[in-house]
Amino acid sequence: MGRVTTRRRISHRNADGVVARPETLVVEEPLEIRVNGAPLTVTMRTPGSDIELAQGFLLTEGIISGRDDIATVRYCQGARTTPESRRSSPTEEDGVNTYNVLDVTLAAGVPAPDVDLTRNFYATSSCGVCGKASLEAVRLVSRHSPGDDPTTVTPAVLSALPARLRKAQKVFASTGGLHGAALFGTDGSELAVREDIGRHNAVDKVIGWALENRRIPLSGNVLLVSGRASFELTQKAVMAGIPILAAVSAPSSLAVDLAAQAGLTLVAFLRGESMNVYTRPDRVG
Amino acid sequence: MGRVTTRRRISHRNADGVVARPETLVVEEPLEIRVNGAPLTVTMRTPGSDIELAQGFLLTEGIISGRDDIATVRYCQGARTTPESRRSSPTEEDGVNTYNVLDVTLAAGVPAPDVDLTRNFYATSSCGVCGKASLEAVRLVSRHSPGDDPTTVTPAVLSALPARLRKAQKVFASTGGLHGAALFGTDGSELAVREDIGRHNAVDKVIGWALENRRIPLSGNVLLVSGRASFELTQKAVMAGIPILAAVSAPSSLAVDLAAQAGLTLVAFLRGESMNVYTRPDRVG
Repeated sequence: MGRVTTRRRISHRNADGVVARPETLVVEEPLEIRVNGAPLTVTMRTPGSDIELAQGFLLTEGIISGRDDIATVRYCQGARTTPESRRSSPTEEDGVNTYNVLDVTLAAGVPAPDVDLTRNFYATSSCGVCGKASLEAVRLVSRHSPGDDPTTVTPAVLSALPARLRKAQKVFASTGGLHGAALFGTDGSELAVREDIGRHNAVDKVIGWALENRRIPLSGNVLLVSGRASFELTQKAVMAGIPILAAVSAPSSLAVDLAAQAGLTLVAFLRGESMNVYTRPDRVG
Repeated sequence: MGRVTTRRRISHRNADGVVARPETLVVEEPLEIRVNGAPLTVTMRTPGSDIELAQGFLLTEGIISGRDDIATVRYCQGARTTPESRRSSPTEEDGVNTYNVLDVTLAAGVPAPDVDLTRNFYATSSCGVCGKASLEAVRLVSRHSPGDDPTTVTPAVLSALPARLRKAQKVFASTGGLHGAALFGTDGSELAVREDIGRHNAVDKVIGWALENRRIPLSGNVLLVSGRASFELTQKAVMAGIPILAAVSAPSSLAVDLAAQAGLTLVAFLRGESMNVYTRPDRVG
């Protein structure tokens, strides 16, 4: 769609003085996800792989459990002719398909998400879902708990993954503005790599790719993220049945707590041959 | 409150083998913000400066315009005795003050936030507020537009700020897990530095500090953030009347668009003497 990066003329300063020059920027635009015609959430994302993003989001929020729960996903034509959709694009004319509103129609018999007020707050806050109810909810709604997954991975395979993610992150190289997420087999085979300005979106995109390819639950796979491991990302891994989550940077306390409860192997500070294994180290060896 | 960091025993691997050792983690816990007793939002944050965080959030969401709009802010005692609050803490017993629920009572005559469904989605999504309605809304509700602010800052002052933020970021040094935000005068004087696992929270905390100290609007000041400049952070700067936002990493397209519209000076890739000025370069010189 040609909207992943854009160029602007900027003023660059260094010790030698000031020059005007074009600079490549990563595009950030809102995506409104509707379910059965009703607005569910808005996320600021980098355009591209939007359908994967929507599908991954619905899976990791517990609204769907697999590909068959979705009938159709389509961009809303002329989306900006309604007040709600008018909010969703800062750039296009009314009646034009802005590619910033996606409507997901659930399969017959799949219940629409609960949109009571409390749920909305939790579903759309910056953390995904918060607190004890969420830790409990993950165990309740995740049909794909990684706890019993017998997958193992060698330190050598893990050590090689970050360099491969960086190599695959083409847009980051030109803008410095994107998080990356990648799915690998435990033999190091690369399944999918996605980038986004939001790290939760990058994760939803690779999980949505897996859903599209009927690979949910993702047992036997490793999810690598380019940044830190928060509660939110750990929860997404659990919801998708991923047994091993590896992060290049630090984990949070609540990410470690959730990983311990769910039986997920959490690796962080994965840098060269050095790594910390916070939970379920029996899967690394 | 002793909850900013915690220690866990982990398994560390490198080329020499595996050792078990304690590791310091940054704490991530949910904070529920209530207004006049009604739940408004939940954010995953690092405990500490919670009252600043809540006040900064309410200001940057346009719910209050200054310190006088707030009557009281207090942690809910025995918060976990209601179903809603039970969600908000994974660790404490019912009836105990978990310090994870804050109730803000607005001053007489200040309208409570609109909690209709659509607004909730926007107010609590990971991006803060999204899309064209938001860009318009910022101009409508921000009482403190930075466009006419005559503030200028020298490149030498700007260049010195990131090292000072890093020096002040004590927790990051021990955990690698925190974003930082800092307010400076244009002479380089340091006003406030805050850290949080969420970059939007770190910004809300320094803005909440300013509100507490009756420094809103923050005309004549520079906001520095340790990471990237997103639409959300740019919007928070505009809402607080900050004329200059500087980021160590990349800006997004929508951040630049909003900065241009609002008359904010946006500096990014601020590294040593090198920096890019994306909008209103007249303030740097």
